[in-house]
Amino acid sequence: MREPEVDSAANPPSERNLNYWEYIRVEELLALQRGFDDDESKVSNDEALFIVVHQIYELWFKLILRELTTARDLFRQNPVPDMAMSSVVRSFKRVVAIFEQATAHFRVMETLTTRDFLGFRDRLIPASGFQSAQLREIEILLGLEDDLRIPIGREGSYKEALKAADGSESSATRRVEARIAGGPSLKRVIYDWLSRTPIDGPSGADGVDRFLASYIDAHRAEAHDRMARAQQQAMTPADEGRLRERYEAETAVAAAFLLGNDDPSADEATRARLRRVRAALVFLESYRELPRLAWPREVVDATIEMEQSMLIWRQRHARMVERVIGRRTGTGGSAGVDYLDQTALRYRIFSDMWAVRTLLLRQPSVPELVHPDDYRFKVED
Amino acid sequence: MREPEVDSAANPPSERNLNYWEYIRVEELLALQRGFDDDESKVSNDEALFIVVHQIYELWFKLILRELTTARDLFRQNPVPDMAMSSVVRSFKRVVAIFEQATAHFRVMETLTTRDFLGFRDRLIPASGFQSAQLREIEILLGLEDDLRIPIGREGSYKEALKAADGSESSATRRVEARIAGGPSLKRVIYDWLSRTPIDGPSGADGVDRFLASYIDAHRAEAHDRMARAQQQAMTPADEGRLRERYEAETAVAAAFLLGNDDPSADEATRARLRRVRAALVFLESYRELPRLAWPREVVDATIEMEQSMLIWRQRHARMVERVIGRRTGTGGSAGVDYLDQTALRYRIFSDMWAVRTLLLRQPSVPELVHPDDYRFKVED
Amino acid sequence: MREPEVDSAANPPSERNLNYWEYIRVEELLALQRGFDDDESKVSNDEALFIVVHQIYELWFKLILRELTTARDLFRQNPVPDMAMSSVVRSFKRVVAIFEQATAHFRVMETLTTRDFLGFRDRLIPASGFQSAQLREIEILLGLEDDLRIPIGREGSYKEALKAADGSESSATRRVEARIAGGPSLKRVIYDWLSRTPIDGPSGADGVDRFLASYIDAHRAEAHDRMARAQQQAMTPADEGRLRERYEAETAVAAAFLLGNDDPSADEATRARLRRVRAALVFLESYRELPRLAWPREVVDATIEMEQSMLIWRQRHARMVERVIGRRTGTGGSAGVDYLDQTALRYRIFSDMWAVRTLLLRQPSVPELVHPDDYRFKVED
Amino acid sequence: MREPEVDSAANPPSERNLNYWEYIRVEELLALQRGFDDDESKVSNDEALFIVVHQIYELWFKLILRELTTARDLFRQNPVPDMAMSSVVRSFKRVVAIFEQATAHFRVMETLTTRDFLGFRDRLIPASGFQSAQLREIEILLGLEDDLRIPIGREGSYKEALKAADGSESSATRRVEARIAGGPSLKRVIYDWLSRTPIDGPSGADGVDRFLASYIDAHRAEAHDRMARAQQQAMTPADEGRLRERYEAETAVAAAFLLGNDDPSADEATRARLRRVRAALVFLESYRELPRLAWPREVVDATIEMEQSMLIWRQRHARMVERVIGRRTGTGGSAGVDYLDQTALRYRIFSDMWAVRTLLLRQPSVPELVHPDDYRFKVED
Repeated sequence: MREPEVDSAANPPSERNLNYWEYIRVEELLALQRGFDDDESKVSNDEALFIVVHQIYELWFKLILRELTTARDLFRQNPVPDMAMSSVVRSFKRVVAIFEQATAHFRVMETLTTRDFLGFRDRLIPASGFQSAQLREIEILLGLEDDLRIPIGREGSYKEALKAADGSESSATRRVEARIAGGPSLKRVIYDWLSRTPIDGPSGADGVDRFLASYIDAHRAEAHDRMARAQQQAMTPADEGRLRERYEAETAVAAAFLLGNDDPSADEATRARLRRVRAALVFLESYRELPRLAWPREVVDATIEMEQSMLIWRQRHARMVERVIGRRTGTGGSAGVDYLDQTALRYRIFSDMWAVRTLLLRQPSVPELVHPDDYRFKVED
Repeated sequence: MREPEVDSAANPPSERNLNYWEYIRVEELLALQRGFDDDESKVSNDEALFIVVHQIYELWFKLILRELTTARDLFRQNPVPDMAMSSVVRSFKRVVAIFEQATAHFRVMETLTTRDFLGFRDRLIPASGFQSAQLREIEILLGLEDDLRIPIGREGSYKEALKAADGSESSATRRVEARIAGGPSLKRVIYDWLSRTPIDGPSGADGVDRFLASYIDAHRAEAHDRMARAQQQAMTPADEGRLRERYEAETAVAAAFLLGNDDPSADEATRARLRRVRAALVFLESYRELPRLAWPREVVDATIEMEQSMLIWRQRHARMVERVIGRRTGTGGSAGVDYLDQTALRYRIFSDMWAVRTLLLRQPSVPELVHPDDYRFKVED
Repeated sequence: MREPEVDSAANPPSERNLNYWEYIRVEELLALQRGFDDDESKVSNDEALFIVVHQIYELWFKLILRELTTARDLFRQNPVPDMAMSSVVRSFKRVVAIFEQATAHFRVMETLTTRDFLGFRDRLIPASGFQSAQLREIEILLGLEDDLRIPIGREGSYKEALKAADGSESSATRRVEARIAGGPSLKRVIYDWLSRTPIDGPSGADGVDRFLASYIDAHRAEAHDRMARAQQQAMTPADEGRLRERYEAETAVAAAFLLGNDDPSADEATRARLRRVRAALVFLESYRELPRLAWPREVVDATIEMEQSMLIWRQRHARMVERVIGRRTGTGGSAGVDYLDQTALRYRIFSDMWAVRTLLLRQPSVPELVHPDDYRFKVED
Repeated sequence: MREPEVDSAANPPSERNLNYWEYIRVEELLALQRGFDDDESKVSNDEALFIVVHQIYELWFKLILRELTTARDLFRQNPVPDMAMSSVVRSFKRVVAIFEQATAHFRVMETLTTRDFLGFRDRLIPASGFQSAQLREIEILLGLEDDLRIPIGREGSYKEALKAADGSESSATRRVEARIAGGPSLKRVIYDWLSRTPIDGPSGADGVDRFLASYIDAHRAEAHDRMARAQQQAMTPADEGRLRERYEAETAVAAAFLLGNDDPSADEATRARLRRVRAALVFLESYRELPRLAWPREVVDATIEMEQSMLIWRQRHARMVERVIGRRTGTGGSAGVDYLDQTALRYRIFSDMWAVRTLLLRQPSVPELVHPDDYRFKVED
């Protein structure tokens, strides 16, 4: 950002001596593309591109980790200060903006042809973008559950892939271990905060249960209504029966989810927590227009948008690898592409936020609130 | 790019020890955001963003300089090997892809509010993005004429702005001086190559003159035709006269341009060169469909696209600065925004390529070639 | 959006018969690309592209007009309901998203070469994208002042350009006149709302004046502080004098702007209104972190973002026209490109929002509020 | 594209009367958003957005179908005229540019919240974007094999989904049937053209077989070389054996593919054709730098880029639907999202082009050509 009109004489001596290139550390930065032989003259334009794009990814990842850590620390408080919410939304939007850049970078990578890439690929082995410690840190900080992780080739655990060649600790494993030890995940603190949301009145288990009961009733009523209309069209008793079964199943699944009964192995404390989290999500989405819910709702929206931006990046990554390296159709090779595609399909961190969308009601169907005035405010008064 | 299926045992020992993070130099890279006090703990997320985005610009600029240098060296040859042309087009397309990334990055910068930015702006002075030596190098390597440059505040010359605070040489001035001394500009070598293009037959001044004469005739005929139709509509003798004047002026301007007579101060050698360059450009655009002209035409198209991508980047830069720092309407402040907007309006490197577009003819109007077969070839035969 | 799992039997007869292609009116839509001769077989792919891209612009413009009208109607109320604010922000963000699409479309247009375009250009005259009534309506609805408008060629007024060829009314002029008659502009209603913002206490002229006085003091103090530091560096008494003049001028300009004294021709009522609007803008930006100011602040941010997105679209438009039609450097032709570039530089609707950015203070310098508690609220309580 | 400087008097009467809004058919176009009740006043902004975005998709699809048809007709010729190749590449790049726009539009759709969408969703049933006849036509014209298609819910065949509610013919089924009857697919004609490519000498089965044999040898040699290096690292005889098996399998799979032996059910004519197509692809990629191969290679590259752009659009589509409608994790609902994701993973039209990338060799490993001079040419001579 250029500011030529500002008077450079207006600064204390210590600062006057720091020029743009010193502040940005341009010379050190531009000396980090020396490749395998520590000799940039042996690095082709194509390999320089490869190195630089990966360096740019690491720089973006660093910013993402900073924003996520700040957001986590704000949401770790109890109660979360109201001023924190717009700040967290801004952090998440920044992360979204960065993932969008990162997604677009694959186009630059695709200016490499397969043959260009083969020219230096062999020397890259076993160095692989999969060894990005910071990407693993982002997943850990967000709260990706370990049991969702898709195993990678022979290494098994993602941590194995980060070890030094002789199996010892590396800077990458140290980063990841420090992140794991560095505090709760965003998912954890956001779910904690959601579980404290006052639902139509003072917070407490009773209010949650009352709200869920009335919401499940409303869900059943909406489903029943649609079923009744459908049955007018149904030709045969068999059709009628099939329709009834279907709507009943839909209602039962929604109720089980909202009441935390969808995982039979969960203990009661876990279920109670899930109930509160899910009730809060349904509540925030259903009464979006209440002024006091506006910021919490923005937090949820921004969280979804942030996770989505990462999924879009993963899928675009798969398409780039497929384009440059290819896919042998039908022979099941190409584990790299498949792995990347599978992470996009299976990795969902804020899974309850995604699931809640499937059981929301049309605005006229949501239960009426008992205490709507608790959620209003005025600026002009 | 991940390659988990590859067997890491398949590499000689020297290479096995280089992991991704060593190859990419992750640790050194992530240690370059320590700000003014050489202490990252004092750097806010907002300032880290500012530093990183500028570092990313410098990394992209490095790749651009590499591609432009390679392209310049290929076109420096006489004759330019035919294999070079698709290679240069690929380089230019890569530069376009990079400028598009760089343009999109301003959105990330715009996640800074004015107040966020003010929080660390004062310490930035006099460090300014304007001090990017590599951006100046790109302009020099492309061939931006010094007399087009818009002066910057008090410094006058752009080179002044790159000096150390005490007026001595800096790494930035050294970079720029080395670039100036490092060989001809892309504009120079591309114009040299254009001036050698065989125009409808063996290359030579005669062929050029003959082609230009017939093209100017065709241009006059097309203009005359449009004038005749227009005069049928003209109500009054005055309208008729005005129309005639207008079409005659248009034809005269086109002819003067094509014949290199538009700059009265130019000497005959300069004019002869301009004639050849402009004849080549008109020729390539007018007979685009001839197979043998396809690659030269792609070179011209990619050159225009590359310059355009830089102009779009400049204007988007102006909009980002205006958004974050503002513009005091009417009081003439905000020299930074105006400077950036003016560079986009005035800086044109390949000005003849832009100008030629205004006098191209519809396909049925272009003169017929004498030697069209010289420009054909067959793949399937 | 596909919903294959839904049971089509569940709908009343009247709706069952409406398929996607009927709902979207696909057949009518795909019959609107028949060109000049009302015969699509005479329309080339290039011309079809030209027609379709312009149709897509008109479709997007329609959505923009709907959102802006809704936002205008919400802000026309007094007081503006607090629930309206997040709704207006969503409308503005949607407009931003649409302008971003529209900006990207120029790339599709650029797949036309100059010669492709010349193939059908002559028949387009006088039809020109400049005759888009909806684009004029957007400017009118936003509140572009007529005296800022840049005259277009011979027509003079933009309304002339929309008349039928024989100078009579057209559907385009009717649209524009209806828009002008259709109610106040967004600028008008947003400024009205800003002028009612309670500034550090109950709204009223006294509070505004008190706040502006303390803000101007803080501005002077910050400038003085920077001057003092600068003078320590100043070498000569002349430098010292020059610096003092400069900082005093800066402070005076800021004070005149805030007090509405920058336009000597304005009457006192106008100045009073400007004072209130500008005080509100400075207030919202300076205390961004106060929860109750968060939505008003989002409205201002989204307004700026929306205007910026339109400016970016204008400049990208200029670059597309220059690329396809060219620019005759130095001969001053190419009025089309220049016109488009000038609109981006001169058209600013929410000019006070842009101007305020230049006189904001660093967070530690802003005056302390007397009534900060008026601007807080809690969600968790 | 604005052209205000042009004299409107310069046109014959018939054309003078056609204004922009008549040419673009603005009034008819803006009357097509009247929704279910044929009454635009009942259409909310959200529903208008939904309708318009789908209309814009249909307009883009129309352009894509035009370009693909033109390209198909050019490649249907035998031999394909050399001038056709750059034209086809331009068509494919235009399709890419359009799919990129279409991909970006999902962001506009995402300004709909789930609740906004629920407000009008029920009335949409059974209208669904899946009923886009033009999208099916694009797949047919490209050459998507029917046996790759993923069944959609209860309808089974994609053609069923396009029928009218009462099971009769509709404009959609008529479009699709006409497309199927309208000539060969692009895949068919491109593969025909590839099968005629002269491979290192005059075209003919002998040359193809000779080239494939030498290429398979080179592939085996490269694999052997890597194996030898790997075995130096292997610790145990078991490791050594495992490595040998692995490299032998890799070589065998590559040879089977190149010789067309990968599908045991194929007859000899089919295998012969596959051999020629695959040999041509390997040949074009391996000798990319030969001038005369440059355009055929660009055709292959642009084909891959075009297919990729459609896959990216499909995946982004899935992410939009998931964001707006959600995904019930683990319960297997959400067939819409899964269906869209699966089409992106399974639909590959130019599968041989993707597969060939996995067996390309590094440049130093490719066999030397016998007749390289057949593939050179000169512009400057």
